Amino acid sequence: MKTKSSPPVALLRGRKTLPLIETYFELNHLKQLFRQGWLRVGIPAERCESVAEHSLFVALLCLFIADSHFPEADAGRAVRIALLHDLGEAYVGDLTPHDGVGREDKHARERRAMEQLVGKLPRGAEYLALWDEYEQGTSFEARLVRQVDRLEMGLQACVYEHQGAGDLSEFFASVEKVLEASELRAVLTELEALRPD
Amino acid sequence: MKTKSSPPVALLRGRKTLPLIETYFELNHLKQLFRQGWLRVGIPAERCESVAEHSLFVALLCLFIADSHFPEADAGRAVRIALLHDLGEAYVGDLTPHDGVGREDKHARERRAMEQLVGKLPRGAEYLALWDEYEQGTSFEARLVRQVDRLEMGLQACVYEHQGAGDLSEFFASVEKVLEASELRAVLTELEALRPD
Repeated sequence: MKTKSSPPVALLRGRKTLPLIETYFELNHLKQLFRQGWLRVGIPAERCESVAEHSLFVALLCLFIADSHFPEADAGRAVRIALLHDLGEAYVGDLTPHDGVGREDKHARERRAMEQLVGKLPRGAEYLALWDEYEQGTSFEARLVRQVDRLEMGLQACVYEHQGAGDLSEFFASVEKVLEASELRAVLTELEALRPD
Repeated sequence: MKTKSSPPVALLRGRKTLPLIETYFELNHLKQLFRQGWLRVGIPAERCESVAEHSLFVALLCLFIADSHFPEADAGRAVRIALLHDLGEAYVGDLTPHDGVGREDKHARERRAMEQLVGKLPRGAEYLALWDEYEQGTSFEARLVRQVDRLEMGLQACVYEHQGAGDLSEFFASVEKVLEASELRAVLTELEALRPD
């Protein structure tokens, strides 16, 4: 899997330190991990976003969207889930449907990674429960984050198309598939209208 | 200022769209904007973090640190402030003390940028108030985010040193200067002990 460098936690060579610092070194790899789907369609590495960059925008969009369109939702909970939802990729990498890893297998690998990453933090059990909530879609907020996660991909695809990446219709189709909320479908419709000819 | 590409919002050429989408295109530049301090000390662009990557980790650390060390703090408020605090850089760029822009001037430019960025969102006034709270340090959470913002820089400096960047002591000195909370100073002490010889 293409990354900017090898995982920083290995640089500590097992030296004992605070759980917070160890978790930071583990997670720091998300700054180095490219979103693999963009590389596959030819986005050059020097302009390809990282998983960390994507995650920030999922959290920001969750904040903006929950605040403005879903007053019944707990925006703070949605933001927490957004911040946590991709952390497992620090160990598992950014698996895409093209990697041939089954859904169950991917889930199991990412859950083990989450246990390793946040299990040592004082409130780790809570973070793991929020991650499970996301994976199982057992709350309104979890289902909202899943849709916003995909919508952010559509927004980034639109930016890349305007930057000359060519036709990224497959990404818009993948957004279309998971958007249930009419408020989010309306955003997608507007976004489609903005795509370059 | 070195970036991966020109600001994406210009690609829309003023076409009218939803405020959420316009704000996204404006903010997307944070994925392209290098943290300039690292470039100055020789971190190569292909491994230099973006402002977006830094912001994600400030938000994550605020969550972890508020939850575990500051039960009296409103962790959700700290996370919101963390997500918002650097957004103005989408227009202003990542000004460092080496740019010779005065504190007042920098503040004024970034506030105008924030008005442009979030002013058109339904809850924009609230985000602007949280940004003011951060800039003025008028809440415990705002002061916590300011310290965590600097601590994240120290953690990233430690990663870069382990990756062979050489002596980044000036960054650790800059962290040292703003850390007030004893819990955070303890993290810095541990971090200093981890630096390569």
